Amino acid sequence: MNVMIAAYAASYEAFDSGESKLGKNVLAFHRMIRDQDLSSTHALVSPQIDRTKGIDLQEKDIAARIISENDRGFVINGARMLATLAAIADEIVVMPAPSYQLSDSEEAKAHAFGFAIPVATEGLRLIARPTTGHLNSGSNMDFPLASRLDDSDCMVVFDHVEVPWERAFIYRDVDVYNGVQRTTQVSVQTSHQFATKDLAKAEFMRDLATFLAHSTNVDQFLHIQNGLAELINCVEFVYSCIVTAEKECQPGPGGTVIPRREPLQAVKFMFPPQFRRACEIIQIIGAGGLFANPSYAMFDSDLKGDIEKYFQSANLESRERIRLFRLAVDAAVSSFSGRQQLYERFFAGDPIRASANYAKTFDKNYSIERITSLLDRWESEEKN
Amino acid sequence: MNVMIAAYAASYEAFDSGESKLGKNVLAFHRMIRDQDLSSTHALVSPQIDRTKGIDLQEKDIAARIISENDRGFVINGARMLATLAAIADEIVVMPAPSYQLSDSEEAKAHAFGFAIPVATEGLRLIARPTTGHLNSGSNMDFPLASRLDDSDCMVVFDHVEVPWERAFIYRDVDVYNGVQRTTQVSVQTSHQFATKDLAKAEFMRDLATFLAHSTNVDQFLHIQNGLAELINCVEFVYSCIVTAEKECQPGPGGTVIPRREPLQAVKFMFPPQFRRACEIIQIIGAGGLFANPSYAMFDSDLKGDIEKYFQSANLESRERIRLFRLAVDAAVSSFSGRQQLYERFFAGDPIRASANYAKTFDKNYSIERITSLLDRWESEEKN
Amino acid sequence: MNVMIAAYAASYEAFDSGESKLGKNVLAFHRMIRDQDLSSTHALVSPQIDRTKGIDLQEKDIAARIISENDRGFVINGARMLATLAAIADEIVVMPAPSYQLSDSEEAKAHAFGFAIPVATEGLRLIARPTTGHLNSGSNMDFPLASRLDDSDCMVVFDHVEVPWERAFIYRDVDVYNGVQRTTQVSVQTSHQFATKDLAKAEFMRDLATFLAHSTNVDQFLHIQNGLAELINCVEFVYSCIVTAEKECQPGPGGTVIPRREPLQAVKFMFPPQFRRACEIIQIIGAGGLFANPSYAMFDSDLKGDIEKYFQSANLESRERIRLFRLAVDAAVSSFSGRQQLYERFFAGDPIRASANYAKTFDKNYSIERITSLLDRWESEEKN
Amino acid sequence: MNVMIAAYAASYEAFDSGESKLGKNVLAFHRMIRDQDLSSTHALVSPQIDRTKGIDLQEKDIAARIISENDRGFVINGARMLATLAAIADEIVVMPAPSYQLSDSEEAKAHAFGFAIPVATEGLRLIARPTTGHLNSGSNMDFPLASRLDDSDCMVVFDHVEVPWERAFIYRDVDVYNGVQRTTQVSVQTSHQFATKDLAKAEFMRDLATFLAHSTNVDQFLHIQNGLAELINCVEFVYSCIVTAEKECQPGPGGTVIPRREPLQAVKFMFPPQFRRACEIIQIIGAGGLFANPSYAMFDSDLKGDIEKYFQSANLESRERIRLFRLAVDAAVSSFSGRQQLYERFFAGDPIRASANYAKTFDKNYSIERITSLLDRWESEEKN
Repeated sequence: MNVMIAAYAASYEAFDSGESKLGKNVLAFHRMIRDQDLSSTHALVSPQIDRTKGIDLQEKDIAARIISENDRGFVINGARMLATLAAIADEIVVMPAPSYQLSDSEEAKAHAFGFAIPVATEGLRLIARPTTGHLNSGSNMDFPLASRLDDSDCMVVFDHVEVPWERAFIYRDVDVYNGVQRTTQVSVQTSHQFATKDLAKAEFMRDLATFLAHSTNVDQFLHIQNGLAELINCVEFVYSCIVTAEKECQPGPGGTVIPRREPLQAVKFMFPPQFRRACEIIQIIGAGGLFANPSYAMFDSDLKGDIEKYFQSANLESRERIRLFRLAVDAAVSSFSGRQQLYERFFAGDPIRASANYAKTFDKNYSIERITSLLDRWESEEKN
Repeated sequence: MNVMIAAYAASYEAFDSGESKLGKNVLAFHRMIRDQDLSSTHALVSPQIDRTKGIDLQEKDIAARIISENDRGFVINGARMLATLAAIADEIVVMPAPSYQLSDSEEAKAHAFGFAIPVATEGLRLIARPTTGHLNSGSNMDFPLASRLDDSDCMVVFDHVEVPWERAFIYRDVDVYNGVQRTTQVSVQTSHQFATKDLAKAEFMRDLATFLAHSTNVDQFLHIQNGLAELINCVEFVYSCIVTAEKECQPGPGGTVIPRREPLQAVKFMFPPQFRRACEIIQIIGAGGLFANPSYAMFDSDLKGDIEKYFQSANLESRERIRLFRLAVDAAVSSFSGRQQLYERFFAGDPIRASANYAKTFDKNYSIERITSLLDRWESEEKN
Repeated sequence: MNVMIAAYAASYEAFDSGESKLGKNVLAFHRMIRDQDLSSTHALVSPQIDRTKGIDLQEKDIAARIISENDRGFVINGARMLATLAAIADEIVVMPAPSYQLSDSEEAKAHAFGFAIPVATEGLRLIARPTTGHLNSGSNMDFPLASRLDDSDCMVVFDHVEVPWERAFIYRDVDVYNGVQRTTQVSVQTSHQFATKDLAKAEFMRDLATFLAHSTNVDQFLHIQNGLAELINCVEFVYSCIVTAEKECQPGPGGTVIPRREPLQAVKFMFPPQFRRACEIIQIIGAGGLFANPSYAMFDSDLKGDIEKYFQSANLESRERIRLFRLAVDAAVSSFSGRQQLYERFFAGDPIRASANYAKTFDKNYSIERITSLLDRWESEEKN
Repeated sequence: MNVMIAAYAASYEAFDSGESKLGKNVLAFHRMIRDQDLSSTHALVSPQIDRTKGIDLQEKDIAARIISENDRGFVINGARMLATLAAIADEIVVMPAPSYQLSDSEEAKAHAFGFAIPVATEGLRLIARPTTGHLNSGSNMDFPLASRLDDSDCMVVFDHVEVPWERAFIYRDVDVYNGVQRTTQVSVQTSHQFATKDLAKAEFMRDLATFLAHSTNVDQFLHIQNGLAELINCVEFVYSCIVTAEKECQPGPGGTVIPRREPLQAVKFMFPPQFRRACEIIQIIGAGGLFANPSYAMFDSDLKGDIEKYFQSANLESRERIRLFRLAVDAAVSSFSGRQQLYERFFAGDPIRASANYAKTFDKNYSIERITSLLDRWESEEKN
């Protein structure tokens, strides 16, 4: 996700602290991946161990941490998650998680790091989950999304990996580590990218649902029309927030502009349940037809005649209907869909904590003054 | 709601039909209320009788209809609902409901009318529901919203009311009646006004909830912070849709501009449940404190000492706390709040039918083509 | 709520502790109110001040506490909430809240009390909230529930109130105070009473919705039928849980039986949202007709003729329709309804904390063993 | 589903009509599968074609219908869905769908049939959907549910299949076809079986969620505890409805008892959203850990050391954690889970139509009388 690096690079001075001047490393890294058109993945979160304790307070020694340094760089050992598309990335960026704050302890310093290295570095190993694709189902048309677009989440193991000094962005510096989200405003830039992704997903779900409902004429039913209207409104909501965030942008560091944060936060918190609802609407539209759908590969089998005859719908020939319903299954029912729903819920952090933190950043005095002023006026009217 | 009249006036030619040239009456009416700064209410819907039948097919003769005509004008007899603030309006506008279509029958012509007359016309009677205000509770501060802002919905009875010809906008013309929503695009303009109202409400609920949560320090609880974040996001959603609808407006008739419809429709359908949720969030924040709240008038009673002592909260003196919690009750629990919640659900028509109709206006071919193109491409990749 | 006293009395030995033998006072009190058929209210919760702190840690001295003792009894000063129907009760019972635990501090002892005294005791003052009834609306038929059934929640002020020793149930005994919920199982008995109340409410809402939908024939619409089915299912859910809790009861102390707790807990946590949904369903059924409804008192006014004509519906004369819709407003829209919805949410304690506490009482080992056993079996099948 | 056959057999006389005495065939079939311990699948629904039209009004000739008869039996041609586990069943039962009613036309007679034949009958072909199992993921422990329990829904093609007369249960008899649900009360018996299945599922989800939450200590978080309480309540709700339906059973035909219908209907309509919510709760508990989970087969790979170290959690060794999280994925995220969620929504018919039909069976007069009686009493009190 190069927008993250771009945002860090625009605010590279945020990585300078006291004598340590690591900002130039960030800047150089950004220029390199930009100029060489390199792709990058990232690993921002420590493994789940005991989720009631901070990463520097765990009993089990699992999370990636700094264990030594030498002339060439520092040595990282342990694991990080959750690197997406890591197997096809050139570089891996290892930075602080959006919402986590280290304590002030000596141990915390070992976790106060940030860097980027090639994925192909000695000692770095990727451990992927099983694919959501059903590889042997007969045809890629059976799971058209999973077979093309599965993201392949990886645990990243750093087995005594040496990070060169010129790739160090944060080194044993808890202040920079804890402050980097705020000082660089990176999350506003990534939120803008996320919202753009959400818009594409919202349009896809709306279009898929519309076609699916047309195929068997269920778009003539009131409750199906209500569902389609929800999907239309979802698109407009996401789109309007992007337009407004862009229209009301502010000048940012390094010649960038910073979109207004609040409309993008609205998308961040409101889109995931809408996406899950979109899956539900597609399930309601497709109903039992989503089960009664053979492998596309059966068109090449002895049962071709049956397949061609019995899987037609009111408005579609059998081949068109089967591929459409397979797409609907993969978008709204399959492992690929389940992973998408889970991803939307969590990719920007635990929404329970993230939305609480967001509410805390608001200036409550503004609200208190508005209501107080209203009540004062009404009270004075009563007295007269 | 003068924006409705303004929209009709901008498209006044939509009221001309064959020999009948009533558009000029619409234009003249708009100029009059604008120039004289008159207020208007409206009555767009026929009374509920048998809701499974169109208004021209009811057995009981209740709905307002044309019963005769003469040199001076035509005569209306029967009832219409639901005129809001009618008792303080100068004029009443009686026009087609947003979503209702008359049939092609002779009887339907008697219902195919549109006009505006002074509220003070002979034979016109208003029948209001009981107020949501609790008038004798002791102080207006007890129900601060209801005592100031109750809308007073009225049934309007036309007892052989004569409408002058120069006030006729539609007369026995089913085509104009059924087409006026489409030809004038009035609903886009009113939707813009509604969204503006919604923004004010959303901000008020956010601010009230914020202050309420602060008063007893419950804003330090995670689930309360989650609720506050929802209210912040609601404001940004409504605001962004308004900004985008305005930014992407098109030139309209008569020198007007027409905001883009879709973002405003998103507000129309998505805000009402958010408003109900806002009431729920305020209930969750206030909890039992919303019950344990005396009349503000008790500050003038023998119990003043008790009231001042026992109704303090962590951050508020007793008087401030009581008036704040009374406001919260009136915004989120009282008859006033209940009527607001009901109003938001229904004021723009039955959302079940309205959202279904909205979905039907979308061009499904666009969606079908996008998905078909995607599947065609993937299918061809499989074959190679 | 005499069932609470009955439950305490059945386990009266739980109030004996060391030298202090107060159980006999509980038993005597129960016998008195039973034999004399006295009514009792209760006040279990301390006022909201700073809700992030325990009642013994507040800065402001508001909560009722023990301030002295003498030969006759001990003296309570401060406030408690939320006594329902206190103004018409004979006795007030002041006991620990269901979910609150005192700390082990010296100050906590001043809060570790339980007793019952006549409401008419010197120094005891009740401060009620304003009524939900709209007293001057013209007729009690306008707000038929509020005018008859409003519960009148009270803050209770103890102004140096002396509690006689024979009425002391808990006295400066943190162990008994903290343990009484567990040792007496009082909450199972009260949950059974609550569920019975919920059943009556569920039936009422089902019947009201059914009649309302019939009045204008909207019960012929699919989405209204879906709503009615929800209300039918709600009744059956509550009823089934009561039947099962009773069928699977266990012998309790003092000759009582104790219903099985879990089905009653299901009602406790699942009914409140169902009740709010019932209000919503009634709003959806009634729609604008809930606004367009005059005062019943208008049948005695000059407008009688209009009222009789224009408020008929398909299946009801005007008088029947108006009173039915007024009942629907009071059940699902008015201040009375809002207070009911709030009451259902909170009367058994904050559901967020209460349901969390409930989950913690479950034996997780049972679950862990079941899943482990399943996985062990499957794993061993793989190896063979 | 032998309970369906058992219910039909208990009411076998419902299949006798005029001269046609097919009830004895039903009885004989039931005895055969019972005595020989045969398994049966069923196919009750016609394929989706144009879902706005009844099956006898479709333009495309796809649905199974009677096309001829001879001495040996009658001939069926066309398709039916959705036979579950058909490939391992002995017999297939083809009967009317629960909620569909044939018209009175001549064409309808061709669809008015009911029968059972061996799955291995000449001309009968099964067309299954692709499996939800990911067969080549490395280990069955990766998708432990899909690899063992996938139901394998099939379209059933009848290619000129001859049904022997002794296997005919309904033959060209629209009255019997349309009435059989009512006359046999089959759906009450199957609802009882469904509820039993739901109880098993509810317990499994509760136990799985409990263990999962324990593994990383997130069961110490309030919102996770709330989720676990929901799952506990779901079990109790289903259980209580079963207990009550059984306790309040009535004598049925043929020596059977018929459970009370209403509690089972409550389960039928309320459990499916609870099941989807259970999947969501498991997703919330597992979070990113559900992604960061390798194949179980990797314990046999070079990465064994990494796997054993980095996938531990607070309370589980790596092997235990991985298999637990793979089970959670398969229960709440995977294609298997998606199919389960879809199945629960639709297996007993479209819930929108089914719940509407259910509401229509209720006697509205009971409700109307109760409310009328209440209002009459209150009205008479007002007058005095």
